[in-house]
Amino acid sequence: MAYDLPLGDPEALRKQIEAGPENIWRYAPLLPVPADVADKPNLNPGFTKLVKAENLARELGVEPGKLFVKDDSGNPTHSFKDRVVAQALEAARAFGFTTLSCSSTGNLAGAVGAAAARAGFRSCVFIPHDLEQGKVVMAAVYGGELVGIEGNYDDVNRFCSELIGDPLGEGWGFVNVNLRPYYGEGSKTLAYEICEQLGWQLPDQLVIPIASGSQLTKIDKGLQELIKLGLVEDRPYKIFGAQAEGCSPVSTAFKAGHDVVRPQKPDTIAKSLAIGNPADGPYVLDIARRTGGAVEDVNDEQIVDAIKLLARTEGIFAETAGGVTVGVTKKLIEAGLIDPSLTTVVLNTGDGLKTLDAVAATSQATATIRPSLDAFREAGLAH
Amino acid sequence: MAYDLPLGDPEALRKQIEAGPENIWRYAPLLPVPADVADKPNLNPGFTKLVKAENLARELGVEPGKLFVKDDSGNPTHSFKDRVVAQALEAARAFGFTTLSCSSTGNLAGAVGAAAARAGFRSCVFIPHDLEQGKVVMAAVYGGELVGIEGNYDDVNRFCSELIGDPLGEGWGFVNVNLRPYYGEGSKTLAYEICEQLGWQLPDQLVIPIASGSQLTKIDKGLQELIKLGLVEDRPYKIFGAQAEGCSPVSTAFKAGHDVVRPQKPDTIAKSLAIGNPADGPYVLDIARRTGGAVEDVNDEQIVDAIKLLARTEGIFAETAGGVTVGVTKKLIEAGLIDPSLTTVVLNTGDGLKTLDAVAATSQATATIRPSLDAFREAGLAH
Repeated sequence: MAYDLPLGDPEALRKQIEAGPENIWRYAPLLPVPADVADKPNLNPGFTKLVKAENLARELGVEPGKLFVKDDSGNPTHSFKDRVVAQALEAARAFGFTTLSCSSTGNLAGAVGAAAARAGFRSCVFIPHDLEQGKVVMAAVYGGELVGIEGNYDDVNRFCSELIGDPLGEGWGFVNVNLRPYYGEGSKTLAYEICEQLGWQLPDQLVIPIASGSQLTKIDKGLQELIKLGLVEDRPYKIFGAQAEGCSPVSTAFKAGHDVVRPQKPDTIAKSLAIGNPADGPYVLDIARRTGGAVEDVNDEQIVDAIKLLARTEGIFAETAGGVTVGVTKKLIEAGLIDPSLTTVVLNTGDGLKTLDAVAATSQATATIRPSLDAFREAGLAH
Repeated sequence: MAYDLPLGDPEALRKQIEAGPENIWRYAPLLPVPADVADKPNLNPGFTKLVKAENLARELGVEPGKLFVKDDSGNPTHSFKDRVVAQALEAARAFGFTTLSCSSTGNLAGAVGAAAARAGFRSCVFIPHDLEQGKVVMAAVYGGELVGIEGNYDDVNRFCSELIGDPLGEGWGFVNVNLRPYYGEGSKTLAYEICEQLGWQLPDQLVIPIASGSQLTKIDKGLQELIKLGLVEDRPYKIFGAQAEGCSPVSTAFKAGHDVVRPQKPDTIAKSLAIGNPADGPYVLDIARRTGGAVEDVNDEQIVDAIKLLARTEGIFAETAGGVTVGVTKKLIEAGLIDPSLTTVVLNTGDGLKTLDAVAATSQATATIRPSLDAFREAGLAH
């Protein structure tokens, strides 16, 4: 995606951004969107909280004031997908598309359905026919077409590619296929927001989840743009990628010192990261190595532990992808690869309400008692 | 709750507020909290989106630019409860309480658990023992004590009152019992935000859900304060209360012209509003009558229809309480009680992800097909 950055007067640009709306459109000059984008109907995602995670820092041995969680569960449909879909929607408008579409196994389906509803687009979302009931409901409630495909996610994707190449698919914008170059740019806003919320400074270390790898590469791109524009001081930063052990093609390649990523068959509770053949894997490897970062993975048990660690320390209930980044952060601090004396930003890209099953078995009532003070005393809960 | 409002220079106060943080603490001068409240660890709720609902306006026959949804699902634990709990938490700190507690059947449990986690309080939440599994998980994940009480919500409340009166409950802050006067003040921030987001203007009409009735009375109080402070022009506004037909004690009293509210046994899908004997019912009646508003109710089918209407027009997935306010708004416009040429603000106080069951039966895939273009064509989905 090539377009002109507004090089020139960084101070004026910074002021323009700060006077902008409290969502991703404050960065409109840095995105491939029209200048009046904020006036068009869309979900206005972004500018989510950057939480100073003092309790989590204490538990992980990070210096006070140095650990932050970028909490994208605060987006309109509660995942970072609202950012990328908002970007694709603008492109769809510019191309004159009338149907917004995607293949999805969860977060993206809701984000597309909701964005299309607000913007007055028809939507048609394709999902594997055997998706969990809760996810079907979340995607269907926005009233667009929701089509179950008899097959797995790969079959869904193959079908979508076929549809795009056919006259049947004319006028259709698939956010993660033919609109992908625009879609991807939406992730840069995470980099912009993190730096602005740190007072226009680069963080020293970032921990980012890897599904296709696109988000990680676009955050790096966003940081580089801020340097180029003079909005932040140019100094080194390290990017760390986080995967689930049950779907760790990039982490495996990183540890083996390979440049190529060998596909894996995913088997993990972190379903939103379960892409066995990540398109941007090689670029992720390059960025992790170039910046002095790393790629690491955690197993399902560690993911659950990390979700609960974040919840009980910071009151943030993350989806499994957030468990992956927090778990990997812990592991990398213990391994000495993340420096606890430097600023670290950990991404939480989604909401625990969407992956309740992951923590259900271990998140239950402490006790069940009769409604009497004696029963309460006997249960040992008083103090 | 009596404390001094910063009367004097409205322009200076307005500037101070606008320069404050993007959360409820921008209104710290109007709340019973210390001036440095924003520096203390808490979830920083509020300043949620006021969505100009142009598509919904079209469907309901409201003039363009006149209908707004105040979407409190954007709060940290996705309901307005974060506002009131944040307020109670500050009071708990001031009183030196060490345990944050409540009785709850849902939203409040999560809000208390999360707030206590962030602020470093012990938490102990009491729930009916037969609460839905999903709600138990959402409340338990923050790691505090979660105690199931053998009995219904009334039994839980009775037990909590007993505990507060006993030495066993010493040092315990029950946000909705002994901290209730502070807790309630948190709802005023909804009024402040709505007016500020409308450009420091009163809306003409507000539609607010009624559970205990506290929220509605505190929003009215907040509007009155803004008038008194000179932050908005003094002109008439109408407040409309919204209930579910299956729990409509206030609506029933309103329609019958009574001043007293006769308790009902709740039977509705809008569980977060299912308080059969609402403490503030008489005050709600008074406000609705004094401002020229009304109290109306909708049945479960209308609630589901309204949730889906809001989702497909604005991409906002509301919990059942949001279905109640949107459904009542529709009904009151049709009855000629809400004027479609004036500014109307409808509250959505919670998130659809927490009440998926309400829409599950009618939110399913449009079609299930083989992954082939022929199958797609045959299903009649192309155009």
